[in-house]
Amino acid sequence: MPSTTDSSTGEPLHRRRPQRLRVQNFFVSRDGIAAGEDQSLERPFGHVDPGPLTEWAGATDSWPNRTDPGGSRGVDDHIVRDFTHNIGAEIMGSHKFSPFRGPWTSEDWKGWWGDDPPFRTPVFVLTHHLRPSFSLSDTTFHFLDASPSEALRIAMDAAQGKDVRLGGGVTTVLEFLEAGLVDDLHIAVAPHDIGSGLRLWSSPTDFEDGFHHESVLSPSGMEHHFFWR
Amino acid sequence: MPSTTDSSTGEPLHRRRPQRLRVQNFFVSRDGIAAGEDQSLERPFGHVDPGPLTEWAGATDSWPNRTDPGGSRGVDDHIVRDFTHNIGAEIMGSHKFSPFRGPWTSEDWKGWWGDDPPFRTPVFVLTHHLRPSFSLSDTTFHFLDASPSEALRIAMDAAQGKDVRLGGGVTTVLEFLEAGLVDDLHIAVAPHDIGSGLRLWSSPTDFEDGFHHESVLSPSGMEHHFFWR
Repeated sequence: MPSTTDSSTGEPLHRRRPQRLRVQNFFVSRDGIAAGEDQSLERPFGHVDPGPLTEWAGATDSWPNRTDPGGSRGVDDHIVRDFTHNIGAEIMGSHKFSPFRGPWTSEDWKGWWGDDPPFRTPVFVLTHHLRPSFSLSDTTFHFLDASPSEALRIAMDAAQGKDVRLGGGVTTVLEFLEAGLVDDLHIAVAPHDIGSGLRLWSSPTDFEDGFHHESVLSPSGMEHHFFWR
Repeated sequence: MPSTTDSSTGEPLHRRRPQRLRVQNFFVSRDGIAAGEDQSLERPFGHVDPGPLTEWAGATDSWPNRTDPGGSRGVDDHIVRDFTHNIGAEIMGSHKFSPFRGPWTSEDWKGWWGDDPPFRTPVFVLTHHLRPSFSLSDTTFHFLDASPSEALRIAMDAAQGKDVRLGGGVTTVLEFLEAGLVDDLHIAVAPHDIGSGLRLWSSPTDFEDGFHHESVLSPSGMEHHFFWR
C-alpha cells in the first residue's frame, strides 16, 4: 500500500498546503544591522563581528554546523529545528555565496561551507555572473541571472512541493520583500547595537504592512520576531 | 548514489544522534492540573474542560487536527510543528486511548481520533487488558502489558532510529519520569487555574532534578516550559 504521508513532514498528502517562501534564523542587531560593509574573504560579514548575532543559534542542539553534544533544547532550539523542515530549495544572493565581485576569474570558489554544506537541497545563487552548477555532498549550487519572481518560480519547481528558504543576505531579503514574494520571516534580534552597516529595518514595525507580527523574548536574550501573511 | 541524509530531518545520517523519549505539547493549568477525574465516553478529560488548555495549539497553522486555513505561524506554531518531526512511534497510557476500564467487552472502540488518527506511526497502548493490533489510515495501534522500560525498548525498535513520543496521560508521564526514562519534556501552562484533578506537578521546579529547564512566555498567554537531560 503506498504511503499517504509526506516522508519529510509526516503530514497527510491530501492536506499538503501551498508552498511558501520562508526567511529563517535571520540575524540582526538591536539597531537592525545584519552585516557590515567591506565584505572580504577573511571577513564574510565585513566590519561586523557576527559572533554576538549568531551565538544563540550555535548554542542549540539543532544548529546544522554543530559538532559537539550538549546543545540547548529550549525555545531557541525549537526555532532552529525548522531550518531544514519541509525545505526543498534555497535562494541566496551572490554576497552570501562569495566575497568576490564581478566576473569569475576562476571557479575554484565553492562557497564558505566546506565539503559538506548544511543546505542539502538545490541552492540558487542570484548573480549577473553565471558559472556551471556543481555539487558538494547533498547540496547542488546553481547560478541564476533572474528577477526575484523568476528565481522563485524556478526554486519552487525544484523544491517539489516543499517550501523554499530565502537565505539572505540582507539586500536579497529586502528585494524579495519589496516584490511581495515572502510568506514567512523569522528575524532573531540580538541584545547588542552595532551602529552602522547593512540595515534590515529601522524597527520591526517597518515590516508589519501585510503581515501578522508577533515577538517573544527567549531566555538567551534574543528577541524572536515572526511575520507571516 | 544513495542519499546520505535522513528523509525526515534532512540531517546527515552519519551525524544521527541517539534516540530520545519526548513529551510534547503536554497541557496543564497554572495550578498543574492535566485532566479531570471521572473520565467518560462523553468527557475524555473528566470534569475538566480541555478548551482553555488546548486552544493555543488549535489556533496554530501546524495543529495536526486543523482543517481551516489561517492558523498562526509564530512561536506557538514553531513548537507545535515538532509534533511529528523525527517521531517514529508513540507510547500512550490506556486512559488516553479509551474511557473504558477492565477487560474489553468488545473491540469496536478504536480510540478518540476517527478514521485518520494524527499519529501516523506505530502507537503502543499500555494496558493490562490486551487485544489484537489494528490499523487506521497510517497509524497502527498495538497493546502492551509491559513495564515502562520494556515498553520503551519495544517502541524504540519500532521507531527505526527516530525518537519516541510519550503521549500521556498524566499518570503515564509520571511513571516514565519516575523510571528516569524521559529525555525531553515540553509542558504548556495555560493562564487558568482549575483547582482539582489529576496533577502533573505542584510547580515546574518539581521537575528540575536531572534536567535543564527554561521557560518562555508566548503572546498567546501560554508559558512554555522545556526540560531536557
